[in-house]
Amino acid sequence: MLDNANDMTVTTGAFPSSRKVYVEGDKHKDVRVAMREIDLAPEAKEEPMRVYDTSGAYSDPSIQIDITKGLSAIRREWIMQRGDVEVVKGRARKPEDDGLAPGEVLKVAQFDRSQVPVLRAKDGKAVTQLAYARAGIVTPEMEYVAIRENIGRKAKLKEAEDKGERFGANIPDFVTPEFVRDEIAAGRAIIPNNINHPESEPMIIGRNFLVKINANIGNSAVASSVAEEVEKMVWSIRWGGDTVMDLSTGRHIHTTREWIIRNSPVAIGTVPIYQALEKVNGKAEDLTWEIFRDTLIEQCEQGVDYFTIHAGVRLAYIPLTAKRVTGIVSRGGSIMAKWCLAHHKENFLYTHFEDICTLLKQYDVAFSLGDGLRPGSTADANDAAQFGELETLGELTKIAWKHDCQVMIEGPGHVPMHKIKENMDKQLEVCGEAPFYTLGPLTTDIAPGYDHITSAIGAAMIGWFGTAMLCYVTPKEHLGLPNRDDVKVGVITYKIAAHAADLAKGHPGARLRDDALSRARFEFRWKDQFNLALDPDTAASFHDETLPAEGAKLAHFCSMCGPKFCSMKISAEIRDMADKGMQEKSTEFRKLGSQIYHDAAE
Amino acid sequence: MLDNANDMTVTTGAFPSSRKVYVEGDKHKDVRVAMREIDLAPEAKEEPMRVYDTSGAYSDPSIQIDITKGLSAIRREWIMQRGDVEVVKGRARKPEDDGLAPGEVLKVAQFDRSQVPVLRAKDGKAVTQLAYARAGIVTPEMEYVAIRENIGRKAKLKEAEDKGERFGANIPDFVTPEFVRDEIAAGRAIIPNNINHPESEPMIIGRNFLVKINANIGNSAVASSVAEEVEKMVWSIRWGGDTVMDLSTGRHIHTTREWIIRNSPVAIGTVPIYQALEKVNGKAEDLTWEIFRDTLIEQCEQGVDYFTIHAGVRLAYIPLTAKRVTGIVSRGGSIMAKWCLAHHKENFLYTHFEDICTLLKQYDVAFSLGDGLRPGSTADANDAAQFGELETLGELTKIAWKHDCQVMIEGPGHVPMHKIKENMDKQLEVCGEAPFYTLGPLTTDIAPGYDHITSAIGAAMIGWFGTAMLCYVTPKEHLGLPNRDDVKVGVITYKIAAHAADLAKGHPGARLRDDALSRARFEFRWKDQFNLALDPDTAASFHDETLPAEGAKLAHFCSMCGPKFCSMKISAEIRDMADKGMQEKSTEFRKLGSQIYHDAAE
Repeated sequence: MLDNANDMTVTTGAFPSSRKVYVEGDKHKDVRVAMREIDLAPEAKEEPMRVYDTSGAYSDPSIQIDITKGLSAIRREWIMQRGDVEVVKGRARKPEDDGLAPGEVLKVAQFDRSQVPVLRAKDGKAVTQLAYARAGIVTPEMEYVAIRENIGRKAKLKEAEDKGERFGANIPDFVTPEFVRDEIAAGRAIIPNNINHPESEPMIIGRNFLVKINANIGNSAVASSVAEEVEKMVWSIRWGGDTVMDLSTGRHIHTTREWIIRNSPVAIGTVPIYQALEKVNGKAEDLTWEIFRDTLIEQCEQGVDYFTIHAGVRLAYIPLTAKRVTGIVSRGGSIMAKWCLAHHKENFLYTHFEDICTLLKQYDVAFSLGDGLRPGSTADANDAAQFGELETLGELTKIAWKHDCQVMIEGPGHVPMHKIKENMDKQLEVCGEAPFYTLGPLTTDIAPGYDHITSAIGAAMIGWFGTAMLCYVTPKEHLGLPNRDDVKVGVITYKIAAHAADLAKGHPGARLRDDALSRARFEFRWKDQFNLALDPDTAASFHDETLPAEGAKLAHFCSMCGPKFCSMKISAEIRDMADKGMQEKSTEFRKLGSQIYHDAAE
Repeated sequence: MLDNANDMTVTTGAFPSSRKVYVEGDKHKDVRVAMREIDLAPEAKEEPMRVYDTSGAYSDPSIQIDITKGLSAIRREWIMQRGDVEVVKGRARKPEDDGLAPGEVLKVAQFDRSQVPVLRAKDGKAVTQLAYARAGIVTPEMEYVAIRENIGRKAKLKEAEDKGERFGANIPDFVTPEFVRDEIAAGRAIIPNNINHPESEPMIIGRNFLVKINANIGNSAVASSVAEEVEKMVWSIRWGGDTVMDLSTGRHIHTTREWIIRNSPVAIGTVPIYQALEKVNGKAEDLTWEIFRDTLIEQCEQGVDYFTIHAGVRLAYIPLTAKRVTGIVSRGGSIMAKWCLAHHKENFLYTHFEDICTLLKQYDVAFSLGDGLRPGSTADANDAAQFGELETLGELTKIAWKHDCQVMIEGPGHVPMHKIKENMDKQLEVCGEAPFYTLGPLTTDIAPGYDHITSAIGAAMIGWFGTAMLCYVTPKEHLGLPNRDDVKVGVITYKIAAHAADLAKGHPGARLRDDALSRARFEFRWKDQFNLALDPDTAASFHDETLPAEGAKLAHFCSMCGPKFCSMKISAEIRDMADKGMQEKSTEFRKLGSQIYHDAAE
């Protein structure tokens, strides 16, 4: 735990055969949207493939990374120019913010915040993207996400593309900044962007946009250090994390979070009740609204972009969990349930919900309404406790909207396949189409060690049905804290689920990368196949395990079939033969009828 | 490649806290169905959990394993007693069976077959389970699979269980031997059991039974040895493979297969055209019906239980693949396509299909009608070539049935989620409900290195929709030959997909294991949680990575949350509190109405 700033090295560097490009805004010239461009082999005769890029400056070799300085504040000017925020002194740091005893000295390195002012809305202002959208304003953030979502769509505009099955989603052929504004105004999408996190690259969450994924990181009382968590953040966005939740629960929560936010180009989410609980030494019954509110202010000022708030865990629902196989499995949910029972009072997050709204809109922190009563086993899926809470979340959504707050809704959990769609349908119905943000769901309980897979099945399906963001599950789920490898496996697995959902929804342009990779595969452009993969390193190293020679990457076969059996090779020969008039001959053949045992065509 | 028999060690031993039990038949007293029983901790106060067991004698410590002797022939008496087979001399071994030049001496160890007679049907007899079923006979094999499928069902008979969503499947609450017979007679299910593989434990494939999985193994021209392949077979059934396909393509095909069959308790499938092609030095155009037929006889006599036969790759369909992104990606399909084009003749597997039926029914080798034109990229899914071939497979199914041959149908491939159900629906329609046996399908093309996951998503879905057996995909798919670890990951991933499908179909008893594991999880019975897992070793080792001390397996928390934040622990407290009258109090509270900001109930 004795980190100092010099220990904090993070992973940097470009992806293989890739380069960072920046696309300028039309409306806002200082909007420069980062994308990755993958160069293909000259024989491919194809344009470089542009892909969505969450990795930030870390994959741009032209940018000097200095963790102690943090990322550049690309949104600061946009925020200041709106004229509705002011610099404030901010809340004073307290020893308990880091879990220290009074007088105890912090032994880990601190990020020097002096160059990052604390901002807050001017009196009475709501500085949220929702407020701007409702006022008809297209912010630079909105234009940024429109450009970001459009990757590949222009190329597809002229083609008649398979529209997939959209289950009522309204996906445009081309995303305009005005479409983004309208979706935000309707509450169907959010851009989680705290004004105190100007380093973030805007990203939109909503079912009419590409499906996003979240990676959870965070130290706990028994494992992991500050430096590890910063690297986990950088590592998870390298592989595709669209947001990162810092779920730290041990000591140094404030310090860890500061390092993460200052160096994160993606939205950071937290569950503030975790830190509040630390401040009362883990005794749920000692929590108070005042301590919680103070924690919210602390985190709003740091720059957290969205908060999980378990305001739907109402006292009346708690007994509904008593006969469950796995009771309450959400940490936040169980904390609030215990508080409710201990005091026999309604959840203070519920009773103070409007106070929370008043606070969050001053920083544009989005709500992620927590599903504290989500099922922790397939046995408990879709029960009265879960759906009761969901209805309350719908009710709270409307209150948040009244305050111009951005909202998304968290969802399960453990759900067998045949009960997944009901979750999505009910969420759309009771939450007014606010974005759904689900954990998995896991489709069976019997595979601890492989729950990234049990849940990827459910995640792909619910993403297809309309979930806007998928919270990853790593192989360590239920067993321990994910390490660096687990984080990568979790992120790639969820990129797969999200992309499978995008394909099934027929997002224009989504299949460009699939098709380019398939062509590379068919033409034995091995390096192109690796470079276009979600994880080029693993693809290349798996290939090299059996055929390590550099020449094998030029070979027109692989170790699976060997040279004689290669179907791709034979297939290419067939194509050549087909060009030589086969089409004609076989048309002729088909005319002869297709009875069995008919003599061959010639 | 210089294996000798002493090198051939395989993995043996019981699973943790598990014991092998054998359930006796009612009708046939010599039917003894192997199952695994997992003991739970005494504090669980639960019966041992019985689970489906594919691992054979290798996980029974009371049985002495000797690879050079092979497994005991549990079915020999059943086969002989039917009185319709005879011992024959059998086809003479030829050097080319193992890819040897004439006169070249085999340098790898041979299984001594002298104790395993070669059987064949007496003249004019069909010795297939289909023929028996049609004659109204309930064979010991049928009773075996009925008992095997019923694990857990008795316990559930009295409970009203969630029937899932079955998409027309007709799943009984309890499987009787007569139900099995009727399903086989209708062609809706098969028991692949060559009379020359008496070592096999019967297993049924059909959509009204549990979803099965297949693991592919096999050496290729560039990698792997005989000993490795035998161990891969034992290893893959240890983790749950219901059948194993030996897809060897290099030298020593005959020898490798003999070792595998003699030591396999599960059905073995092959693609005979691979070996036939070896015999003509890899030149597809040199293949002849005579060489192929001779290869079929060789493999029928060895004891292969099902053959993939690419008889649906008709000449007329081949030009339909010319404009595909990835042409023909099935090895067998491309071989036959090349043959067809080279000769400009109809596929000889198609023209000789009735000859093949005549042969297969003499040994009860089941057809697995190959989808040689399956899509190799999501771009090519559900196209004219694929569905044209499927219609031909439907036509061939009826011909095979006419000859009393058992049949299943192979399916794709690469298919985006929204196009999966159409595959299942069309297969059911055109193939008269013959079992569907699919490879994945992969739901995106962009994740080489993770195609076990891209395909598990599709596999779980199509299994739910009605596919009877799922062919696994390993992380090495598209990149190289799977090693031992890859085989395990592939098998476990597909057990997950198959089980998720069983749960969604509401198979009675399927969720018993999920519920037992969930209870163990909730009650912090860590060892029970590991032991009930599909992969106890990985679950335990992941847990121990962060909390290695033995005491941590008794702890009422884990490294994810630490002791203070454990939701399961809090949840248990809630349950206790709930018992103390909470239910009453909160009912009262609910009566007060549920308006926001209502004061707490007391």
